[in-house]
Amino acid sequence: MSDVWQGKRVLVTGGAGFLGSGICHALVARGASVTALDSMRPDGGANPANLAGSPVQLVVADLCEADLAPHCEGVDAVFNLAGQTSHAGSLADPFTDLAINGHGQLRLMAALRAGAPKAVLVHASTRQFYGRPLYLPVDEKHPINPPDPNGVSKLAGEQYWLMEGRVQGRPVVSLRLTNCYGPRLRVKDARQTFLGIWFRRLLEGQPFEVWGGAQLRDLAYLDDVVAAFLRAAETPACAGRAFNLGGSPPVSLLELAAAVVAAHGGGEYVTREFPADRAPIDIGSFHADDTAFRAATGWAPAVSLEEGLRRSLDWFRPRLHDYL
Amino acid sequence: MSDVWQGKRVLVTGGAGFLGSGICHALVARGASVTALDSMRPDGGANPANLAGSPVQLVVADLCEADLAPHCEGVDAVFNLAGQTSHAGSLADPFTDLAINGHGQLRLMAALRAGAPKAVLVHASTRQFYGRPLYLPVDEKHPINPPDPNGVSKLAGEQYWLMEGRVQGRPVVSLRLTNCYGPRLRVKDARQTFLGIWFRRLLEGQPFEVWGGAQLRDLAYLDDVVAAFLRAAETPACAGRAFNLGGSPPVSLLELAAAVVAAHGGGEYVTREFPADRAPIDIGSFHADDTAFRAATGWAPAVSLEEGLRRSLDWFRPRLHDYL
Repeated sequence: MSDVWQGKRVLVTGGAGFLGSGICHALVARGASVTALDSMRPDGGANPANLAGSPVQLVVADLCEADLAPHCEGVDAVFNLAGQTSHAGSLADPFTDLAINGHGQLRLMAALRAGAPKAVLVHASTRQFYGRPLYLPVDEKHPINPPDPNGVSKLAGEQYWLMEGRVQGRPVVSLRLTNCYGPRLRVKDARQTFLGIWFRRLLEGQPFEVWGGAQLRDLAYLDDVVAAFLRAAETPACAGRAFNLGGSPPVSLLELAAAVVAAHGGGEYVTREFPADRAPIDIGSFHADDTAFRAATGWAPAVSLEEGLRRSLDWFRPRLHDYL
Repeated sequence: MSDVWQGKRVLVTGGAGFLGSGICHALVARGASVTALDSMRPDGGANPANLAGSPVQLVVADLCEADLAPHCEGVDAVFNLAGQTSHAGSLADPFTDLAINGHGQLRLMAALRAGAPKAVLVHASTRQFYGRPLYLPVDEKHPINPPDPNGVSKLAGEQYWLMEGRVQGRPVVSLRLTNCYGPRLRVKDARQTFLGIWFRRLLEGQPFEVWGGAQLRDLAYLDDVVAAFLRAAETPACAGRAFNLGGSPPVSLLELAAAVVAAHGGGEYVTREFPADRAPIDIGSFHADDTAFRAATGWAPAVSLEEGLRRSLDWFRPRLHDYL
């Protein structure tokens, strides 16, 4: 394990969320001093249980409102996970979506310019703004066709950071994530990913719903995603670039449903048509071409889909009550 | 002249500005009933003189604050010119820049969805977010590298509208404009384009400054740009697309300076290095590949650079006091 993080001061925005807390735990294990900044919005991925018992310092603060200066002063690195990621939420309220993913990012940018002008920053971006793929797998040159306001606001946030990197000379890396899953995922509903509600239903002994079924997805397991964020920060050649980050080889949703049931040792699901009112945000099949990131860093996913699903369900089984 | 605009109700946002007022006048000449909505922000392109004596109804209202419903109800077409376009302004205050180009656009979108759900909308976008060109001429596939916050907010605004078109079935066309010039340009300073302050200095008998000089630009004359906006709205095949819009064949800034002096019948300029504090937003040479728009619409610029400069200076000469 690399010891480059030993003694480093690191800020993780969205640090009480699913991926954010995973990054916090990994950094602590490597000897870093970690501050997790999180708005703890109830409709986001944050959960106090995600950092319980950890030496991570949790600061409850909203990027859109709080004085960010004290938390940015002198940090060595930033993992920038704070954001609104709900597609349905952005359709219902695109204004708040833009405030979080645009205005809030500009506030963080200003605070970091003052307090840590050269700290490396890894930004959590999304495959979402590619929209319905025109070809598969989707590389970084794929046209941008956001299917909803969240795709636009996330694109703006990423482009602000890449621009900041060019103009200010800050090392910035943006990772365009595919669907991620694992321990600490929001499972009470489908706001973080459909797989969350699948886990919940299964663990509660209820059938889960598969919308459509033929669509392909390349799921990325928490530990692999966390490793990718650390590699991105550790690799100078990544600076200034936006990379796709995929996961395990693509499977259809029906194959995934069967794999989830197998990992749990049983369970049921029902299939239904993709709801008509969600059709505009149905992107069909997706899997990422992430060869650029693999080439730049040597990263590759280490956890198979079957193993990741098993680990996830094993983790949630005794803790589900903390996540409802 | 096409009579498709006869009796049509048209909303022009930013309608008291340079291009917006030009579109208003063209629509009035074609028999349309035109409402110009403009915030009249003093640091923008709006000028009451731009619509003086015209039957255009001017509504002073800010997209970020006003009740937009009454102005959107039942319109047949929208030309969407309202926006912050100052690069330096966006560096000084990226928050207001995003509020105008992001939040304000979302408010307009909501009002139009309620009041005119299928009205065609032509959005004024910009070449600015391509950043420093990686190749010339720049086509629509060129990578996006905004050099400043304004490039990001303008990208977001365009992508919101294209997304709205896909999701709501509204015909939306985005025109990514190069440097435009002509009568009613903001000439009191360089906030709209460097050519504005060149015109002012020349007409006041003062030398104007050329920053750099070797950079190429393809300038677009007002009448040609207005014609392009109307063609975009009139051509169903344009719906859902973003097009580059260029102008006359590219010239260097030094060639342009000489042409401006010749059009005025004399004058002086001085050359200086591109200021170091503006270097991050210096994009070098730019000229657009707009063959896609020409192919879709049959549009081509009709006014030569020499003729456009002469017409511009002749227009401003007796009216300069209204523009200072």
